[in-house]
Formats: sequence, structure tokens, C-alpha cells
Amino acid sequence: MKLHWGPNSPFVRKVMITAHETGIAGRITLVRSPVAMNKTNVHVMVDNPLSKIPTLVTDEGQVFYDSDVICEYLDSLHTGARLIPLAGVTRWEVLRWNALGSGMLDALVLWRDERMRPEGHQSVETLLAYQQKSSATLERVENEIAALEGLPFSLGHIAIGCMFGYLDLRFADVDWRDGRSASARWFDTFRTRPSAQCTEPSVADKLVPSDPSIQTAAHPATLK
Amino acid sequence: MKLHWGPNSPFVRKVMITAHETGIAGRITLVRSPVAMNKTNVHVMVDNPLSKIPTLVTDEGQVFYDSDVICEYLDSLHTGARLIPLAGVTRWEVLRWNALGSGMLDALVLWRDERMRPEGHQSVETLLAYQQKSSATLERVENEIAALEGLPFSLGHIAIGCMFGYLDLRFADVDWRDGRSASARWFDTFRTRPSAQCTEPSVADKLVPSDPSIQTAAHPATLK
Repeated sequence: MKLHWGPNSPFVRKVMITAHETGIAGRITLVRSPVAMNKTNVHVMVDNPLSKIPTLVTDEGQVFYDSDVICEYLDSLHTGARLIPLAGVTRWEVLRWNALGSGMLDALVLWRDERMRPEGHQSVETLLAYQQKSSATLERVENEIAALEGLPFSLGHIAIGCMFGYLDLRFADVDWRDGRSASARWFDTFRTRPSAQCTEPSVADKLVPSDPSIQTAAHPATLK
Repeated sequence: MKLHWGPNSPFVRKVMITAHETGIAGRITLVRSPVAMNKTNVHVMVDNPLSKIPTLVTDEGQVFYDSDVICEYLDSLHTGARLIPLAGVTRWEVLRWNALGSGMLDALVLWRDERMRPEGHQSVETLLAYQQKSSATLERVENEIAALEGLPFSLGHIAIGCMFGYLDLRFADVDWRDGRSASARWFDTFRTRPSAQCTEPSVADKLVPSDPSIQTAAHPATLK
């Protein structure tokens, strides 16, 4: 299988942690595929016209995206305990935790894009709204992390772990651990998993060398 | 059940079409809950700290989000043909169509937000990238719509239908039908479904009166 991949994408990391936890990582060839909101990558768009990673292509040519679909597909390829329970109340709990972690990641990626705009072009209201939504989400996770700890390891844990990891990578100034000791302890344990360690951005970055022939298209600075 | 709802959200529309197709719409109380990227809605955030709609709360207090989780939950409450097949190759096809339509909707919502910024604050590169990704996605759908027509009606059809509906609502200037007659014909048929007709934004807008006590917080224009 081929995975359009990048070392810093938290959604790619969800897929790679799932691949390691299910014992499938060795069957996946990683293709470094840089993508961005303000660029297109024609190599990715052959498989996924939305130009997003992760995108998975099987040896038979079957294409899977987005990250949740890929994770479910990988979870169907092994015989161990399911990371996404097939039925029952635990399935809903796992899907909600995954939606909370992944939804927060969506917000964080957009928040970061907003912060990277030229200073005068940033929307103060949008920055403040992201700050408040993120803070409310972190409070919710802190208050309910015991419930997550009570569940068997799942895609929900992976999404929340990737959320904290992305905060460390891109929002070091936010100090999300402050006043959230239960979350900080939970993440300290999460980070000791081999699947988390080998997908940590600084470690993953060494896995696949950059290929200068594969670049995103930077668009002209004028729009008709 | 209570649904944080809005007449113009394409993700809410996915849920409502699912609710009508599964015969569950009558069990859902709609709460008009305005949300936006640059605002917070404290009423929604009680149930979903990310301040996003749709968010569903059952009579037992169980909370479901995002739209895909809600659709799957509703699909589990009826005994008719599943809108999300439980297994088999059709499940992957439906999930990919849903991811394509929903991913396009994500892009369209962000594209619209970009277009609504003050003119000098818009990113020309971002606008162009959205244009190219959207165009590529519409081409892909046009080329593969026969495959979608070959599948039993599903969440994938609903996502693609909501995508075309949102293009009509917010991107009338794009003229997505031009050169895409197969997609246009498909959507003409989709629109005749009762579930599509009663969730059409101009129709849905009359369902729930605006409640002036429920407002988003507009944040101060200065950021410390």
C-alpha cells in the first residue's frame, strides 16, 4: 500500500499510530507529499482531488480517505482487538472521543493558518474564537479523561494523543498542561507507546527523505 | 432528541436528510443554533465545546457529533435498508463518497470564509488553491457519477447531494453545472426526493423561528 504522508500532519499521525498498533505499518510505503491550504499537490490530486493527506492507495488501486476511513480500513485488516469497536455503547464513546480530538485538530490547523497570515490580515475575532473553543475543549477533556482511561485503547485515544502532540508541536506558547494535570499525566503515558514514539514528528521526519521533484504548486500572487 | 441546528449548514442538512430517509425526523427537536468560525455559541458549547453544528443530544443525555457520527447513530435506530452498509466492499465505497462530498464541503465553507474577508485581507494563493481543488473534485465526481448511481441510496449520495446544494446556495457565481451534465442530471433527480425538498435551505429556514435570546458571542475587535 502507498500512503501520501507527511511527518507533521496530525491526521497522518492518527493513521500511522493505527498502522503500528494493528501491526500493518510494515506493509505501507510512505510517500512524502507536502500539502497546504494555499497550495495544490498534483501528485496527491491524482488519488484525492481535495489534495489532502493522509490518502491511502492499496496495491489493487483502491483509494481511501479521509483519516477516519483509512483508520477503519486498517483496523479491518488485522485479527487483534479492534481500535474501533464494531458495535455497542463503546463504539459511540470511541467515535465521540475521536470526533472531539479530530475536531480540535481541525480547529488547531486553522488557528495556526490564521496566526501565520501577515499580521494586519489576521482576523482578531477568529483568533479569539479559536482560543476560546480550544480552551473549552481542553477543559472538557481534562474533566472527562478518567472516562477515556476506562476504555480499551482505541481510535479515540489515538485522536486525543495526536491532539496533545500537535499542541506541543505548533502551540508551545499555549502551555496546555497548565492547570490540566490529569491530561498531562495521561499524555505522558500515551507517549511511552512505541506507536507514539516512532510517529513523533522529529522522529518521523527522518523516515523519508524530501524529494525535490515532488513539490506543491505555489500559485501566482495575482488573481483575475 | 435535541439537535443543534441551522437551516444553511450543509452538515446539518446531511443529518436531516438522513433523519428523513430513516423515518426518525419526527423524533428530533430542532434548536436554531447559529455558529461561525469567528464566533462562539455558549449554548452549543455546553454540549460540544468545539461550538459546531450539528450536535445531537438524546433524551438520556448522550451527545453525538460530528455529522458522520450522528448519521451513523440515526442509521442504527431504524430497521430499513442501511444508509451506511455495515460491511463489505460497498461500505468502503459509501465511506469514500461521503469523505469526498464532506471534504469538498469543508473546503467550500473555508473558501466562502476566505471570500468574506475584507478584500485586502484575502489570500490570493488560498483562493486559487480552493478554486483548483474544487474544480478537480467536481471533475472527479462528473467522471465517476455512474458508479455512485450504481450504488443503493446511501450516506455517500447524501453528502454529494448536499455538496451540490451548497454550491447552489453559496457559489452561484461558479456555475458548477457548466460542462458537467451527468452531475447536473444526477442532482436534478436527487432534488426530487422528499428528504431533499424539505431540507432545502429556503424551506428549512421557515421551520424554526429565530430566537433573539440565543446568539453567538461576537468577540471584541481587539486582542491583547
